[in-house]
Amino acid sequence: MTLADIMTERRETRAGIPAALEALAPLFGERLVRGEDVRRAHAHSTTYIPNQMPDAVVFVRSEAEVQAAVRICAEHRCPIVAFGTGSSLEGHVNAPLGGISLDLSQMDAILAVNAQDLDCRVQPGVTREALNAHLRDTGLFFPIDPGANASLGGMAATRASGTNAVRYGTMRENVISLCAVMADGRLVRTARRARKSAAGYDLTRLLVGSEGTLGIITELTLKLYGIPEAVVSGVCPFPDVKSACDTVIETIQTGIPVARIELLDTLAVQAARAHSGLDLPVSPCLFVEFHGSPASVAEQAAGFAEIAAGNGGGALESASLAEERARLWKARHNFYWAALALRPGAAGIATDVCVPVSRLAECIEETRLDIEAAGFVAPIVGHVGDGNFHVTLLIDTANAAEIDAAEAFGARLAARALDMDGTCTGEHGIGQGKRAYLTDEMGEGVAVMRAIKQALDPLAILNPGKIF
Amino acid sequence: MTLADIMTERRETRAGIPAALEALAPLFGERLVRGEDVRRAHAHSTTYIPNQMPDAVVFVRSEAEVQAAVRICAEHRCPIVAFGTGSSLEGHVNAPLGGISLDLSQMDAILAVNAQDLDCRVQPGVTREALNAHLRDTGLFFPIDPGANASLGGMAATRASGTNAVRYGTMRENVISLCAVMADGRLVRTARRARKSAAGYDLTRLLVGSEGTLGIITELTLKLYGIPEAVVSGVCPFPDVKSACDTVIETIQTGIPVARIELLDTLAVQAARAHSGLDLPVSPCLFVEFHGSPASVAEQAAGFAEIAAGNGGGALESASLAEERARLWKARHNFYWAALALRPGAAGIATDVCVPVSRLAECIEETRLDIEAAGFVAPIVGHVGDGNFHVTLLIDTANAAEIDAAEAFGARLAARALDMDGTCTGEHGIGQGKRAYLTDEMGEGVAVMRAIKQALDPLAILNPGKIF
Repeated sequence: MTLADIMTERRETRAGIPAALEALAPLFGERLVRGEDVRRAHAHSTTYIPNQMPDAVVFVRSEAEVQAAVRICAEHRCPIVAFGTGSSLEGHVNAPLGGISLDLSQMDAILAVNAQDLDCRVQPGVTREALNAHLRDTGLFFPIDPGANASLGGMAATRASGTNAVRYGTMRENVISLCAVMADGRLVRTARRARKSAAGYDLTRLLVGSEGTLGIITELTLKLYGIPEAVVSGVCPFPDVKSACDTVIETIQTGIPVARIELLDTLAVQAARAHSGLDLPVSPCLFVEFHGSPASVAEQAAGFAEIAAGNGGGALESASLAEERARLWKARHNFYWAALALRPGAAGIATDVCVPVSRLAECIEETRLDIEAAGFVAPIVGHVGDGNFHVTLLIDTANAAEIDAAEAFGARLAARALDMDGTCTGEHGIGQGKRAYLTDEMGEGVAVMRAIKQALDPLAILNPGKIF
Repeated sequence: MTLADIMTERRETRAGIPAALEALAPLFGERLVRGEDVRRAHAHSTTYIPNQMPDAVVFVRSEAEVQAAVRICAEHRCPIVAFGTGSSLEGHVNAPLGGISLDLSQMDAILAVNAQDLDCRVQPGVTREALNAHLRDTGLFFPIDPGANASLGGMAATRASGTNAVRYGTMRENVISLCAVMADGRLVRTARRARKSAAGYDLTRLLVGSEGTLGIITELTLKLYGIPEAVVSGVCPFPDVKSACDTVIETIQTGIPVARIELLDTLAVQAARAHSGLDLPVSPCLFVEFHGSPASVAEQAAGFAEIAAGNGGGALESASLAEERARLWKARHNFYWAALALRPGAAGIATDVCVPVSRLAECIEETRLDIEAAGFVAPIVGHVGDGNFHVTLLIDTANAAEIDAAEAFGARLAARALDMDGTCTGEHGIGQGKRAYLTDEMGEGVAVMRAIKQALDPLAILNPGKIF
């Protein structure tokens, strides 16, 4: 497709938007909002990517309303950008071609909790914190925790994970089934509620991570887990990143079922100390957590401490009281805000590579040298049990040269991860920000993805300009 | 599509086969085999489905040869049926439209074992037993165990699982990445070697379970696990199936990380006693296994025994010696042969439903009444931690009335599982045998699957007549 073709297509795409809005207006009344503030808020994006507003925001309340909206948009070829809470990081909710933002936050009912089956059915606007609050008295919890209080529909759409994916998996492993409205308005349920199935193509996994480009998720069946009888968290300092990474490798290889194992480099530790007041040693640290019976947790912690000591690590300072643990993980979760304080006025741009764990120390070390050479203020944290780490670049986004330098750094980092057989994104997704890297990573696979996109959304109305 | 269309298309499809074989012959020489015995063996199927032979069998030795064969077949519109070991159960390797069987068993190299990353790269013809034999000295193992010594490519293609999926997952969770030759001969790698990724559509999971209809798997990167320090297996008798199922539910809910939990109903126990000589109590039994440290395994076994006792179960007779455990699981794995002895001369037809575990006792009980009413000899075994169970119908396949009755029973069983929010196949796949049930189960989802099939294999040369 030439640039001229693309520009023609964009004009054509935009041509139907007024008619679509006119058809949507009587159905949604005041729930179709054209005010600029609301539109801007629905396109905001925690990156340097410019805000690209939709023409209107439509607040839907039911599956039938989603179907009606999609059918109207399909008729007029109006772009639809599904919106949960807007906490995605790669411009996923931007509307480069305009159209509507379909806000699913009011579809926030918890439809069923099947305690015996350890699963639940929820609408897409339920946030992970709302679900866990609802579950509080059942003895169950939903473990996936990307930090932000994201919506579960959005978490499925971006294949989110976070700190305890090393034990509980990502959204890929924890969505049993989805309902989705496809680009022609058809409602599809991707699977029944059985824990496993060999019935045809895995449409659940196809939609998980499809970033709103193949269908609009309207319901999710999720796995739940029993709240562990005992939980112990702890912090362990290391002389350098390599010894921390070697400890991670041995811990995983020994089969210690660690629930969380997070790396903070020295700069990240300094930021966390300043922001949270935690008395952390000023050196690379692993934050760890163990789940199980009291005996099992003690055994896991002892096993980890032994491995850490063998790699030159300090003593494991552990916390079993809920308040102490909460304070520790709050410091980890608030890391983004702590990092911002390292350079007041700057914005934080998060990168997100993931490599085989055997290459992790090398990848982080090369990246650290790159950061130093480029002169960035940029702490590193990582879900290192998975080989996933984030550099937070503190950038003056008003300075074009800094943005260029950050983009160039991001490209070098992605290339480095790919050279080590890793991925350009462990958990944030492609969105607008990583489309070039996807081609580097997947090669011919991108053509296969495009063929699927073309087959399921031939008018390209679902979140256009994302992934591809 | 009318029947006339279908018949026209079938004639057209077959028309290109001679030209395809002529083009393949100089490339493959003696590795293109037209003899009837070889062709029949490549279409055999452990079901009542009639043997439908390909026109030739092509033994490939490299990815490049697979590409060459697929390109020739695409040019002449010749069907291609990928073949591993032929242990699939729903007619997956039959060739209803003729064409070639692409035998991948000679692509049996183990390309890499990355011990630090707990993964390996293998060619598709490597069997699970060959992989585990190769791993013996590394302290690692590959857990997925469908009973048969299947090829890993075939196991991925059918989304296989087996006895320890309750702990380690199915092929869905254990394939990190695949290489596949698509219908036009392009080679695609679905992911790099990172443990998780959010880079675009999940092509790995799309190919896992696609039964050779979307691409030919030519390489797999698989997760490995450390061989547990301690393993304890055991058998626990129950007064009835319900109390055994209730024990399963409580065990899972309590978070005991049971590695295997298998139900045998009374008839299955009788068959296993007679065949293996094991001194089992004549009542429904759970076969269980626990993996972990010695302390953890003891704790798990004690926790299970307590739950079992609370549900009226007998004492857990446990075996920690490798030989005792091997004897127990050999009895479970040889169950199919044991079952055949219940009705000498009969064939065993395995069903494969899977329901939410809360409905398992009810589903098995209704099925047991159905078996009795229909007068079948049909023991039941199940991977009950997943809610998955198999009825083995012992049928005289020369008797058309028995086959009809078995088909009607299978349809009732599938409908019963769907009514309980389950699936018509937990692990065997759709193949030829369950196409009608797929539509019942997935509704509009089948249209989505068809659209993907059409987009990726527009000439319908890859394993035609399967899934759809």
